[in-house]
Amino acid sequence: MTPEDRLAALGLTLPTPPKPVATYVPYRIVGDMLYLSGQGPRQPNGGYSVGRLGKDATIEQGYADARTVGLLLIAVAKDALGDLSRVKGVVKLLGMVNAEPDFADHPKVINGCSDLFVEVFGEAGRHARSAVGMGSLPNRMTVEVEAILQIAPPA
Amino acid sequence: MTPEDRLAALGLTLPTPPKPVATYVPYRIVGDMLYLSGQGPRQPNGGYSVGRLGKDATIEQGYADARTVGLLLIAVAKDALGDLSRVKGVVKLLGMVNAEPDFADHPKVINGCSDLFVEVFGEAGRHARSAVGMGSLPNRMTVEVEAILQIAPPA
Amino acid sequence: MTPEDRLAALGLTLPTPPKPVATYVPYRIVGDMLYLSGQGPRQPNGGYSVGRLGKDATIEQGYADARTVGLLLIAVAKDALGDLSRVKGVVKLLGMVNAEPDFADHPKVINGCSDLFVEVFGEAGRHARSAVGMGSLPNRMTVEVEAILQIAPPA
Ligand SMILES: [Ca+2]
Repeated sequence: MTPEDRLAALGLTLPTPPKPVATYVPYRIVGDMLYLSGQGPRQPNGGYSVGRLGKDATIEQGYADARTVGLLLIAVAKDALGDLSRVKGVVKLLGMVNAEPDFADHPKVINGCSDLFVEVFGEAGRHARSAVGMGSLPNRMTVEVEAILQIAPPA
Repeated sequence: MTPEDRLAALGLTLPTPPKPVATYVPYRIVGDMLYLSGQGPRQPNGGYSVGRLGKDATIEQGYADARTVGLLLIAVAKDALGDLSRVKGVVKLLGMVNAEPDFADHPKVINGCSDLFVEVFGEAGRHARSAVGMGSLPNRMTVEVEAILQIAPPA
Repeated sequence: MTPEDRLAALGLTLPTPPKPVATYVPYRIVGDMLYLSGQGPRQPNGGYSVGRLGKDATIEQGYADARTVGLLLIAVAKDALGDLSRVKGVVKLLGMVNAEPDFADHPKVINGCSDLFVEVFGEAGRHARSAVGMGSLPNRMTVEVEAILQIAPPA
């Protein structure tokens, strides 16, 4: 079962990644490593899920938003690789939560992204990570995640 | 003198790393790189040293906590590698301090981890790093550090 | 046209990077990767541009400060490599903005660094990145950026 098959079995469709309107790019490949730019919980209308954990966004919302971010990261990987079977492993995530100073449950939020990676890539989707609280995030979005993946050459 | 010898000479015993109860893992190895998940100042009772620099935690406490984090990162590396002599170099730390907006002394806190790495690994322990202030951290802990190490294959 | 030529054409002179007075170093090389420690907007007098976006620093100031940080990162790369033509690509930036909780324009700030990298390195300067808001930064500086570059062996 390929990652694309698993996405279909989960009823998930890859979104179209936003095009950066600046001098950065959504990804860079170096040897067998794919570096993915940070992504946020982009909604079908092009806006972002906004809010702050511990204030006006629940852990459930944060978890769902982190899953949305994970799907966007996978969409960028698909653009980069053509074929998601080239993902040999998810190496490292930096999971960033927009949260109040006394918020303490960042891991429960970022699990939304981590869980999706394991659902789609199986054991290869298990990764090192940090799940931490930011002072603020672009567009006041709830969560942002950046990722490093190990990849195989094109078949 | 091996890193294990140096730990013994410093009177330090490696703690047992916590087992993640989720879809992430404490480390990932890719080629000659070891990526370590962020760790916090875990106490012998299983809890974490909590507080916020610039509010209710002193720089001395933060330094001690960062040293505790460093020892935990070394314990995870030992689990991953079997033999700490396989550490060829500490490449990069991201040192994250739970701090008030006007706190300015993050480097003095993260030095607790950086200093330990040099005590244990010698010159190979010197690393690139950033030492910065987070809006919040899991469990309200004082400090979290993630690391990338360069490693040799098993002997 | 070499990166050094482009710097000269832009009227830019590389600053002297600060020497870390601790157990970390400004950079580490592993294989074909150059890891650069986080740098801040150091001023000619040795101090830092301080302030908080959304409070007492404008986006224009933040952009200029991020450009100053970019020049310092390039100066460290020059120290590390001798010859900036050895930079094969800018792989990844973590752009960290000292900002109020409701600040939303982090990308506009970090573009100061990203734009400089493209001006100096051309297409090879385009990179993956995250541009996010910190709770605080060392010396209360406005912005800090760390970077990973892909490099070629010495000629
Ligand atoms: Ca790397």
